[in-house]
Amino acid sequence: MVTAGADRPATPNGPDDSATGLAGGVDGPDLVRRLAAVALEAAAAGARDRGGPVPAGGPDAVARAVRAACPDVLPEDGTGAEAALTAVARALAAGAADPADPLCAAHLHAPPLAVAAAADLTASTLNPSMDSWDQAPAASELERLVTAAVAGMAYPDRPSADAVVTTGATESNMVALLLARERAVAPVRLVCSDEAHHSMPRAAWLLGLPTPVTVPTRDGRLHPDDLAAALDRTPGPHVVTATAGTTSRGVVDPVRAIADVAAAYDAHLHVDAAYGGGVLFSDTRRGLLAGLDRADTVALDLHKLGWQPLAAGLLAVADGTLLAPLSLRADYLNADDDTGAGLPDLLGRSFRTSRRPDAVKMATTFLALGRTGLGRLADRCCAAAEDAAEQIDRRPGLRLLSRPELSTVLFRPVAADRLADRAGDEAGDELVAGIRRSLLTGGRAVLGRATVPGPLGGGRLWLKLTLLNPHVTAADLTRLLDLVEQSADQLVRAPRRATDGTSTPE
Amino acid sequence: MVTAGADRPATPNGPDDSATGLAGGVDGPDLVRRLAAVALEAAAAGARDRGGPVPAGGPDAVARAVRAACPDVLPEDGTGAEAALTAVARALAAGAADPADPLCAAHLHAPPLAVAAAADLTASTLNPSMDSWDQAPAASELERLVTAAVAGMAYPDRPSADAVVTTGATESNMVALLLARERAVAPVRLVCSDEAHHSMPRAAWLLGLPTPVTVPTRDGRLHPDDLAAALDRTPGPHVVTATAGTTSRGVVDPVRAIADVAAAYDAHLHVDAAYGGGVLFSDTRRGLLAGLDRADTVALDLHKLGWQPLAAGLLAVADGTLLAPLSLRADYLNADDDTGAGLPDLLGRSFRTSRRPDAVKMATTFLALGRTGLGRLADRCCAAAEDAAEQIDRRPGLRLLSRPELSTVLFRPVAADRLADRAGDEAGDELVAGIRRSLLTGGRAVLGRATVPGPLGGGRLWLKLTLLNPHVTAADLTRLLDLVEQSADQLVRAPRRATDGTSTPE
Repeated sequence: MVTAGADRPATPNGPDDSATGLAGGVDGPDLVRRLAAVALEAAAAGARDRGGPVPAGGPDAVARAVRAACPDVLPEDGTGAEAALTAVARALAAGAADPADPLCAAHLHAPPLAVAAAADLTASTLNPSMDSWDQAPAASELERLVTAAVAGMAYPDRPSADAVVTTGATESNMVALLLARERAVAPVRLVCSDEAHHSMPRAAWLLGLPTPVTVPTRDGRLHPDDLAAALDRTPGPHVVTATAGTTSRGVVDPVRAIADVAAAYDAHLHVDAAYGGGVLFSDTRRGLLAGLDRADTVALDLHKLGWQPLAAGLLAVADGTLLAPLSLRADYLNADDDTGAGLPDLLGRSFRTSRRPDAVKMATTFLALGRTGLGRLADRCCAAAEDAAEQIDRRPGLRLLSRPELSTVLFRPVAADRLADRAGDEAGDELVAGIRRSLLTGGRAVLGRATVPGPLGGGRLWLKLTLLNPHVTAADLTRLLDLVEQSADQLVRAPRRATDGTSTPE
Repeated sequence: MVTAGADRPATPNGPDDSATGLAGGVDGPDLVRRLAAVALEAAAAGARDRGGPVPAGGPDAVARAVRAACPDVLPEDGTGAEAALTAVARALAAGAADPADPLCAAHLHAPPLAVAAAADLTASTLNPSMDSWDQAPAASELERLVTAAVAGMAYPDRPSADAVVTTGATESNMVALLLARERAVAPVRLVCSDEAHHSMPRAAWLLGLPTPVTVPTRDGRLHPDDLAAALDRTPGPHVVTATAGTTSRGVVDPVRAIADVAAAYDAHLHVDAAYGGGVLFSDTRRGLLAGLDRADTVALDLHKLGWQPLAAGLLAVADGTLLAPLSLRADYLNADDDTGAGLPDLLGRSFRTSRRPDAVKMATTFLALGRTGLGRLADRCCAAAEDAAEQIDRRPGLRLLSRPELSTVLFRPVAADRLADRAGDEAGDELVAGIRRSLLTGGRAVLGRATVPGPLGGGRLWLKLTLLNPHVTAADLTRLLDLVEQSADQLVRAPRRATDGTSTPE
């Protein structure tokens, strides 16, 4: 017979047993508070070690530092909680590309709000799992409130609208395509622009759908006439995807005109608003998304212009009945008699089963800032992009692609154009890529990149700023652009030395 | 011209601006620490309000309490960070089914370790996104170390083994099926038992694969002869799924014998070890999974017997080249010239794009406890199940289904058997379901349920304990079983009053 109780400490959450102490219950939160303080102090120390937006030295140096901190990540015997937290948190922070640093501005990689991170911690301690009410009584109601609020924002005049929480737009786009597949009488074909996110055609492949039709954009945008022509050429049923905030250029497809075309062809309209959806909070910029409420489905990511730690995706649907294909019965989670007795059925809210309550951090952030507070943060990011564009325009050494629409700014050093004109596009592109890699591996700045086709972009490689930090200042942007120009000068003078991605010319 | 810098506080992370302060940078961690303390104090207060494993009153009461705390989840103007955190964290905890409470034992819903929750917070503050190196320099190396360690545990003798991080076994199972689909020359057909997790046939549906073949189990287990017969009857190629730890009964299919059959039919073998995989840490119980290393793919969930906050899923593969179908080029994330210059390509590690660094909490927990420390926790859960089984066996009012193999215990009040014999199976099942709902909505205990076919289960409904709390004591289990017997007595005496799921007979 096994003696339960043996091999168990008298005070499971006491100071001598912090590695096996639980996060929940009445006493767990105090242990979590103490351990979180240790981890956060180490993270701050790591940030000081780093001393910039990203560690210097490139991939090999970072990998060496991490392995030095954890020479054996799964040892036979543990080191205890505090030593482990200190080692990992410090290495993580010392080796982070920190989006809270104004010079880290490459991707749709937002700096999270402290309030959202703290709220998410309470989700971790209680660990509600969103697949049944008896694992998430309050969390499921919080999620209901959040999804209703988001559905109301995307579809202000549709009481039938609903939304579900996802891990991000890749899942949202996949689920949207799945819902379209399930309501169609024949295999649906995706029709999207060449600037649609890669997760759209990938979802079609995953779901076993016909090869998508890709429509070339004009200046980064899907033109309604081109869409109509593509729909004419291709037998339906169709799923049309518009993008409200493209990844490479941050521009918004003309959603209203696309909705007219989609309606004329009886197509399911999905809008990937993972990026642009954040301006729904803003009184001054919401108009950029005019026509969004004509979409059947809308992908939104609050880990972009919503400043949540990952993940905080949502899929809004014009009509909640569209979600029916996600429904599922599992006797252990939503037996008919339990549902009949009033226990809410959560299983039809996701393709996932166990599911982290990401709505907790969203609800807390919504409450803390309100719609107008979130709108002001979105406006600041867009204003910063406008400011960056003006600064670029004033610099003879840099060339702006076009005025920003959301918070993405594409530009190119004039030196790269000169090089391209003299030695071919590839030479110019090498300089652009070299600037990015040199600043990155030198630990000085994190910029993005995009190849821009068409008359404006010339099929050349451009540098990209994606400004999601609402606290970035004009002075930060000046510093960032100075770095780009300095790097361009150095690489033009000594191209071989720096484009190998590891050296740090100074 | 927009004046960048206007409308921005002088001290973005200062005390007067805690709602818009960022989590990252050098100063962010201190703000997070202060806000986390507020949230955790509210969570502890909420746990005291709750006063048990789950709130009393059922869904309507919980929903009312949450709405009272957040009458408008997205107000026009915010309340500030502290008020929002206090309101949401307290409501969340007061309305939680807390797996850290020993009487919350229904599901594969683990109580997280405090050290894992604290580690996950550092991931939230820095927000590495695992889709490119320049968003996650150190986090990607930590993930590499964790996945290598897990692959080594699942496949000790295969240097070619690898693993990827997922949101849980639902995603792992789907990706396993996708990998099998992509290596097959014709549409693969899933062959699995009727005790396989619902996510297996659901993944086949999602991926557009032929209708799966379901093989009835013998005493909850897939028998190799039945599998061979099913493979004989059905044209291939096949994906065979074995389950190492079924959801309803917690039993392990005979993996080694199934591997022999799968090999004879040239089938892809996937093992869903979401539950049982945790005993890989245990010296005494690892043998339960003998043959696991013969699988092509293995699903593991460290948010089960691994005590991580959600999500902490993994898919291990016998050979890393199997992962090739996940590879993808996206110019903005892994351009050829960047990869050529040494920047690691992370995009082929997941179907997702933006991705939370769940490896951070796993790495910290591994370091803190070591393999043997985690093994001891797994052993304690299994020992608690053995203890519960013995206690049930000793009670004349309860009947044990069978000895537990992992940490799941199925049992039934003898009163339900008597009722079934007298008034039909449905009457007995109603009593069992009524006990569960009455304890749940009364706030007293959270138990699971499972309909068990076959001669042993009789097709009847059983109560289920899934013991994932390593600190549960013999006294806790006694208290839990007492509650079940008391509830059975009360319901037999006054069935109508309590089975409506809202009243709380005392």
